[in-house]
This record gives sequence, C-alpha cells and structure tokens, in this order.
Amino acid sequence: MDAKKIAKLISVYKNGLLDDTIRFWQKYSPDKKYGGFLTFLDADGTVVGTDKQIWGQGRISWFFSRLYNEVERKSEWLELARNGIDFLDKYAFDTDGRMFYSVTREGKPLRKRRYLFSECFGVIAFAEYAKATGDTLLAKQAHELYELILKYHTTPCLLEPKLIPQTRKLKSHAMPMILISITQVLRKVRNDPLYEKVVNEALREIEDHFLKPELRALLENVGPNGEFLNEPMGRVINPGHAIETAWFILEEGRFRNDRSIIALGLKILDWSLDIGWDHEYGGIYYFRDARGFSCEQYEHNMKLWWPHNEAIYATLLAHYLTGESKYEMWHEKIHDWSYAHFPDTKNGGWFGYLHRDGSLSSTLKGNMWQGPFHLSRMQLNCWQLLESMK
Amino acid sequence: MDAKKIAKLISVYKNGLLDDTIRFWQKYSPDKKYGGFLTFLDADGTVVGTDKQIWGQGRISWFFSRLYNEVERKSEWLELARNGIDFLDKYAFDTDGRMFYSVTREGKPLRKRRYLFSECFGVIAFAEYAKATGDTLLAKQAHELYELILKYHTTPCLLEPKLIPQTRKLKSHAMPMILISITQVLRKVRNDPLYEKVVNEALREIEDHFLKPELRALLENVGPNGEFLNEPMGRVINPGHAIETAWFILEEGRFRNDRSIIALGLKILDWSLDIGWDHEYGGIYYFRDARGFSCEQYEHNMKLWWPHNEAIYATLLAHYLTGESKYEMWHEKIHDWSYAHFPDTKNGGWFGYLHRDGSLSSTLKGNMWQGPFHLSRMQLNCWQLLESMK
Repeated sequence: MDAKKIAKLISVYKNGLLDDTIRFWQKYSPDKKYGGFLTFLDADGTVVGTDKQIWGQGRISWFFSRLYNEVERKSEWLELARNGIDFLDKYAFDTDGRMFYSVTREGKPLRKRRYLFSECFGVIAFAEYAKATGDTLLAKQAHELYELILKYHTTPCLLEPKLIPQTRKLKSHAMPMILISITQVLRKVRNDPLYEKVVNEALREIEDHFLKPELRALLENVGPNGEFLNEPMGRVINPGHAIETAWFILEEGRFRNDRSIIALGLKILDWSLDIGWDHEYGGIYYFRDARGFSCEQYEHNMKLWWPHNEAIYATLLAHYLTGESKYEMWHEKIHDWSYAHFPDTKNGGWFGYLHRDGSLSSTLKGNMWQGPFHLSRMQLNCWQLLESMK
Repeated sequence: MDAKKIAKLISVYKNGLLDDTIRFWQKYSPDKKYGGFLTFLDADGTVVGTDKQIWGQGRISWFFSRLYNEVERKSEWLELARNGIDFLDKYAFDTDGRMFYSVTREGKPLRKRRYLFSECFGVIAFAEYAKATGDTLLAKQAHELYELILKYHTTPCLLEPKLIPQTRKLKSHAMPMILISITQVLRKVRNDPLYEKVVNEALREIEDHFLKPELRALLENVGPNGEFLNEPMGRVINPGHAIETAWFILEEGRFRNDRSIIALGLKILDWSLDIGWDHEYGGIYYFRDARGFSCEQYEHNMKLWWPHNEAIYATLLAHYLTGESKYEMWHEKIHDWSYAHFPDTKNGGWFGYLHRDGSLSSTLKGNMWQGPFHLSRMQLNCWQLLESMK
C-alpha cells in the first residue's frame, strides 16, 4: 500500500473515530441520571428506550478505557469508562456471580440468559479499566470472572441447554471465538498459564470442529465433536461472525509470530468472503446456508454494519501480514461499499441496518445490540495498523 | 359487492385453495417414513430441513380435518389429518401433559418453550379431528388440553417468565387472542359454560388492557393491568397480528349477533390498517412503533405472507358485516397487492418473505413457522363467506 493511500485511510479512520463515532456516543449515550449508558438511540441521538443491555455497558466501558490506554490519557475518557464500570459493579451481577443480560435504566435486573456474553464483555471492561487505573484488584476480578465463564462453559448442563440434550447436543462457534478475543485483552493486564491453554483449545476446536473444508465454511453450530447437522441450524453460516473470528486468529498468529495460526485465519477469511459477498448488490450477507438453500432467518440477506466493520479490519490485517494484493483489493471493495452506504452524513455515526440493495431499513443508531463497539474498534484497529505500515 | 365480483373472487380463493395450496402441501409435506408433516420446503418442494415444529403439525392436522368437515368428506383428507394426529399423539407430549415446541423427524423431543402455542394448536387439531371422526373421547381430550392451557396461563410463574417478575411483569396480546380462536373451534364439538367465560374475559382484556385509544393501537405487550411501557417492547405493534385478532372478534360478534363486539373488532381493524399499510410501496408492515420510532426488529418493514392473509379475510368479513364500501376498497387493495407479489407462479403456493418493496427475500415455502395455515385458512374462509354473499 503506498504512503498516500495509507495517509488517506488513516485520516478516514482516525477522524471517523475521534470526530464522529466517539463524539456522537459521548454526547448522547452517557446516562447522567442513573449512570451507565443509554444505547437505544435514534439517528439524531433521541433516546427511544432506556433499558440497558449488559453487553453494551461492558463494551462501551471497555472502549473508553482502551481509548485512554492507547490514544490519549484524557480524563473525560477515563471518567466515561468509570461511569460504565460503576454501573456494572452495582447492577450487573446476580448473587451467583453471573451477570444479567439486561437491567432497567436504574439498574433493576430484567433478564438473565443461558449465554455467557454479558460476562465476556464484563471481563474486557474490567481488564481494560484495570490497565487504565493500575488497579490490580480489578484485574484479579476480571480474571475470576473469566474463570467463572470457563466453569460454566465446560461443565455440562450447568447452563440450561436450549435443546433437550438427550436428543441433540449442539455447540456454538461463538464461545471459542469470544474466548480468544477476551483472553487477548486479559493477558495485557495479567499473566496466567491458563490463557495460552484456553486459546490453544479454542483454536483447535475452531479448526477441528467448526471449520469444514468440504463446505469451505466455518459453521455456527456443530455437534460436541464437530458433527455436521444437516438441518438449517446446522448449515447456517454467519460470514461476518466468521470474518471476526478470522481476525482474532490473525491477531493471535501475529502475537505469537506463528505462520500456521495466520494460515488458519486466512483460510477462514477467504472462505467467508467467498460465501459472504453479494455479487449483485455488494456488501456482506448476514446469513448463508452452507449448501446454498434459502436461510430461515428473516434478515438473511440484509446488510448490517458490524460484519462490514469486521471485514474492513480483517482484510487490512490480512494484507499487512501477507503483503498479498488480493487482501488490499478486498479491503478497498468492502471499505468503499461500507462508506458509501452506512454513514449518516447528517447526524454522524453509522446506520446499522440496510436492506439487501443497500437502502436504509432502520434509522436507529443503537438498540439492545447495536452500539459503538464494532465501528469504533474497527476504526481504532485500522488506524493503529496503518500507522505501523507507514 | 356485485355478483360478478363475488363469482370471480370465489374462483380465486376456491381454486387457489384446492388446486394450488392444498395440492402443493399434500404433495410435498406428508412424511411417509416417520409420519407427521415436513414443513421446511424450498420453492419447488425440496425438503431443506426435517425437524418438526409442533405448531405446524397441529395446524396442518386441523386444516385437513376442517377440509373434510366443511368442504368434502374425502378419505384422503381424513387420512392426512390422521397422519398428523397420530404423530402428535405419539411424540408431542411431555410427561407433564404439556407439549414440546419441536421434535426431530422421527419424533424425539428437541425443544420445549415457556409459551403455550403448541398446546393451543393441539386443541384445534384434536377438536376438529374429533368432529370429523365423531370421536367424543378425543373431543374430551381436546377440552382437557384447553384446561391445562388455562391453568398454565392463569397460575403466576407456573411457566418461567421471560423477564424477572420482581422488576417487570408483561403480558402478551397473543394469549387472549388465541384463546378466542381456539374456543371458537372447540365449541363446535363440545359444550361447556367455561367457553363463553373464557372468551368474555379475553375480549375484556383486549379492550381494557391492550387497546390504547390515545395511540389508536392494539399493543403486543402491556403490564398486568394494561400499564403502558414506554420502551420498544412496550410500544411495538404487529399490525397483522392485530388484524387477525380483529377478525377473531368479528367472528365472535357474528356468532353471538352482538353489535358491540363487532364494533370492537372494527375499531381494531381500522387502527391496524391505518398504522400497518405502507403508503409508499404497498403491503402491510411487519412491526410498527406506537410512537413512530424505528422498530428494533430487523424485519420491521418486511412484507410477510400471513399478515396479508389475515387482512384479506378481515376486510372481507368487515364488509360483509357492515356493508361499508371502505372495507370493500381495503379488501381489494390488499388482495391485489398480495396476489401481485406473493404467489409462486412457477411452482405453486405463496412465498412467505418479501422485502419492503415487494421483491423476493426468500424462496422458502415453509420453515419452522411458515406453512399452509394462514393462506389456506384465508382461502377457505373467504370462499365460504362469499358463498353466503351470493
């Protein structure tokens, strides 16, 4: 990539992050009355709902901590991070040490689910904030929460399974995937031989169980030993999710300087781009069926913001690690399509939900799932990577 | 409505039912190996999944029984109904008397949910089949299942609530709505003073708790005493669902010859058409927010087959009951849009999922939720009603 292009891209990502994404969320999201963050925001920042999803609280707290750690030691960013950490501390935990899925604006528990993602985003929030403040006790707390996740994840039936296990056991690619990612954050503040073990096991599980060379696909759901289930839930591919996994793995290979791990990440990336890209309208499909049938998910061919965020960074990282021009071309293609369709040029920020043809489906900037997480992470990651490519 | 139009519409609905919908499902859906029905069908009838959802098994069994009872005493229809009833008998029930949500192709239980809809569709299947066969024992079984539904529905926390009840209690319009409908089927084979009581209570609950004149809307979710919740889940309207409720209520008014009940149904119909119709592209939106915000559901502006089925019959029935030309105009508008967009002119049957602009989103003919139920019921109801308008 030539210097001029690098400089241009840095300005897109850096200015996009600091002058647009962060500015929008910093202005509209903090809940000055009850603490934490409001995420149900319409295009212009209007609050359309006040319930708080714990994922979002953790993700935003993590990101402001990371901005403080990696961009600039601005007290306002630390303050915003603390605003989220305090809310999580006070309201996110059930008596069993697990975290709720959602709470009311004032922090009363609304819903607890059989998944561990609230806890995963809790780990990165606590770890990154511990790094910002040098709080070793909090770093230890993050590690304990990580151990609780592993306990629930590895003990059969400790979490009520969705399907009746005597008939069918399925496991989801989301768990090994997110374990890689949260370990990568946690190990910045703690050392523990457990971390490498967890990541190695997750890599093995993804490669041996979820990745199917005969389908050229990373599946979302397989049996306990990687058995392929020839039903819609067994054939479903979420290309954006797989691409996100791909770059978590590429980061691991980069961290360890291990070409075989990088090769695994590239394989997942290649196959997921192949099956995920919409050759007619551009953009990345939300769901695909590994055997080419219609997916049952209503939103299967919609274009959501976050798969595009993940793909922009994954392709840039792949180009950086390999020097291959095909990844530069993919990066440019996805970047251009995304920037032509997702930004809200009037109010700032990105829209989240487009129809297949790229037209706007929803004016929301945030909801229970949508927030600044994927977008701001992509902008910061790309900016940092491009700096090292100068 | 003039005689020529009536005759033309009868041929659309009658031929559509007998030569198209039923033909497609009769050909591709029965599972000759394990019994019951396969519902995961692609456009041309290709089976893309074999898991069986109990709603679908009950609905199809009910409909073939009803065809036998009301159209013609064809042994093949009775045979198909029995195929479903036997499968339900053998595989749908858990040891506590409740029914599963889904089972595998061979009938092993896959999933049980905290909702009572499997049981509701079980009631109509058993009742209608009991009518077809004169089996009073089965009619009694249907009644007992109905009582079990009422027990679970009215006993607090007998079903694990989705939200933590100390923080927020919500009830869904779907329950009083479906109780009206299944009672209307059950009372064709049994007499019980309970039935009128249940319907009266459901009508009262819908009118006093779910219907909000200040919003001109029937809400999906409210507090235990009808409290409005100013959050996305409290503001959400499903116009097709409300329109379906409207005609259940219109049928009740027609059955009792009660103008006040008919007036309630018309009010719900009017408001739901107003908020549900897409003035730009035509068709009925899937979700709307009572205060006009963007909905959080990805599919909020998609056009699904079933709201259109419900609206075609509801407007025809409203026209029949009132003679008002506005309902004839609505009927024509919805009928024309639907028949211009949903039918699969190549393979027969209707597609289920269109984008907002009416273009095809999915080629599926059936899945865990989609089947012949709404379409065939609309066709038969419209045909029968038009016969009485001759």
